[in-house]
Amino acid sequence: MEPVLKLEAHTLESLIVEYMPTVTHDGFHIEALQPGQARIRYGVTPDMLRPGNRVSGPSLFAVADIAMYACVLAHIGPQPMAVTSDMTMHFLRGASPADLVCEARLLRLGRRLAVMQATIRSVGDTRVVAEASGSYALPLGHVQAQA
Amino acid sequence: MEPVLKLEAHTLESLIVEYMPTVTHDGFHIEALQPGQARIRYGVTPDMLRPGNRVSGPSLFAVADIAMYACVLAHIGPQPMAVTSDMTMHFLRGASPADLVCEARLLRLGRRLAVMQATIRSVGDTRVVAEASGSYALPLGHVQAQA
Amino acid sequence: MEPVLKLEAHTLESLIVEYMPTVTHDGFHIEALQPGQARIRYGVTPDMLRPGNRVSGPSLFAVADIAMYACVLAHIGPQPMAVTSDMTMHFLRGASPADLVCEARLLRLGRRLAVMQATIRSVGDTRVVAEASGSYALPLGHVQAQA
Amino acid sequence: MEPVLKLEAHTLESLIVEYMPTVTHDGFHIEALQPGQARIRYGVTPDMLRPGNRVSGPSLFAVADIAMYACVLAHIGPQPMAVTSDMTMHFLRGASPADLVCEARLLRLGRRLAVMQATIRSVGDTRVVAEASGSYALPLGHVQAQA
Repeated sequence: MEPVLKLEAHTLESLIVEYMPTVTHDGFHIEALQPGQARIRYGVTPDMLRPGNRVSGPSLFAVADIAMYACVLAHIGPQPMAVTSDMTMHFLRGASPADLVCEARLLRLGRRLAVMQATIRSVGDTRVVAEASGSYALPLGHVQAQA
Repeated sequence: MEPVLKLEAHTLESLIVEYMPTVTHDGFHIEALQPGQARIRYGVTPDMLRPGNRVSGPSLFAVADIAMYACVLAHIGPQPMAVTSDMTMHFLRGASPADLVCEARLLRLGRRLAVMQATIRSVGDTRVVAEASGSYALPLGHVQAQA
Repeated sequence: MEPVLKLEAHTLESLIVEYMPTVTHDGFHIEALQPGQARIRYGVTPDMLRPGNRVSGPSLFAVADIAMYACVLAHIGPQPMAVTSDMTMHFLRGASPADLVCEARLLRLGRRLAVMQATIRSVGDTRVVAEASGSYALPLGHVQAQA
Repeated sequence: MEPVLKLEAHTLESLIVEYMPTVTHDGFHIEALQPGQARIRYGVTPDMLRPGNRVSGPSLFAVADIAMYACVLAHIGPQPMAVTSDMTMHFLRGASPADLVCEARLLRLGRRLAVMQATIRSVGDTRVVAEASGSYALPLGHVQAQA
């Protein structure tokens, strides 16, 4: 069964900003949304850099986490309590201080767990900066389940 | 820099069979090979099943490992000593006893480490059965390095 | 809250042999069992080796999977349907063809998910051969839940 | 071979503060240091919290990353360029806004890669909040290598 979107991009963007107080409309946008997939753009600020002028590991983790959270919410609707259960990241190359683009793909939306994969690139660059896979525990009420 | 293939599919298939004695030409094929990507087909035998007639976790791990190893060898040439360094798998759905197809993508080919992502599906089914990401330590001699 | 054991070692050992037909009493033993922890011993057979006479990655995966499954069953009782949800392994050194010892620790036993960490060593050697962390989806009926 | 410490706790603490400008002596301390192991204490500030008054995922990632980085530096000496290569985290329970304690264990210190495991707890609480395993790519010059 195909996953079904429950939110439009602009509603989703506002929900993320509401649920995650560190995220603002300024530097964060939902760039694309389709069944099973969400792409965000995220502005890199000076506090996200480590020595060498590269985006830090925890900042890349945060970007992957936001994209996956957006991808989950898009498919379960406005329920803040989806919580990261596990996350694996591979860091492939240094990311210079340009906007980041992160594409999250829903691999499975079960009753209890959503599993996703995500790739982060710098805007305008085809090379993958970091790759992530992870699971989110879903609130018990949510109804959509995929075979 | 684009990764460059150093082997053709039929040579690669023979090397895998030579380097991994548990793999035979019978149930294993390189289905597709292009720069940065390798797809294998793998036959499921009864000893790969767990109760409930589903492919076992270790067998899915083995299939992802073979596909990633094939993807590495395709880009570094006939050097058996690429060794799995880490592997993360998410198991998404039970896989029935049909042939498996595993697609491995090279995310980075460095001097010391190759990082890949792979997805496993049952043949003829679009749903992902398991997703993997992992690294392989490369033999020191290998020369190709990607920015 | 401390996790509570629901099975004794010899019952657990028989259940694993019953639920996992590839595992026999011959080469597999529950060596130690206490609340939150299970240690197994696992015999290495020739089909578990890769070239270079080292235990293969999929075989190490299988050993970690069996130890974690044993650790889950010990705490939820005789319910075969705990299923591996995700597993991450780091492979640290080659393991020679001697018996393996794997210690699994329960990090969290929730209603829906058990999370564990495991280390594999060769018998008589203090160095870690492989390290694993992973989650198991639990059958819905199981009642014990840890804060 | 046992890993050998190359730094004392107070030197290590100053190096981390120097190499990671977001970390200050105020809320960060090396609590314990021994061959193969480092324990840090990390103060939780309001910007590290998510809704529900719990420490956010990226903040827990940052704490694990700092502890592992400290553990690497302790064994290779004052070389800033050890870089996170991969990291897997399991998030087990919400962490309230109290100081965090993170214990990192060196599983292998090779020529090219250091592999570690870490557990995070809230101070005064025995329950594990998050568990991490990961690798760091080491600068080529470093000499200590463990069998």
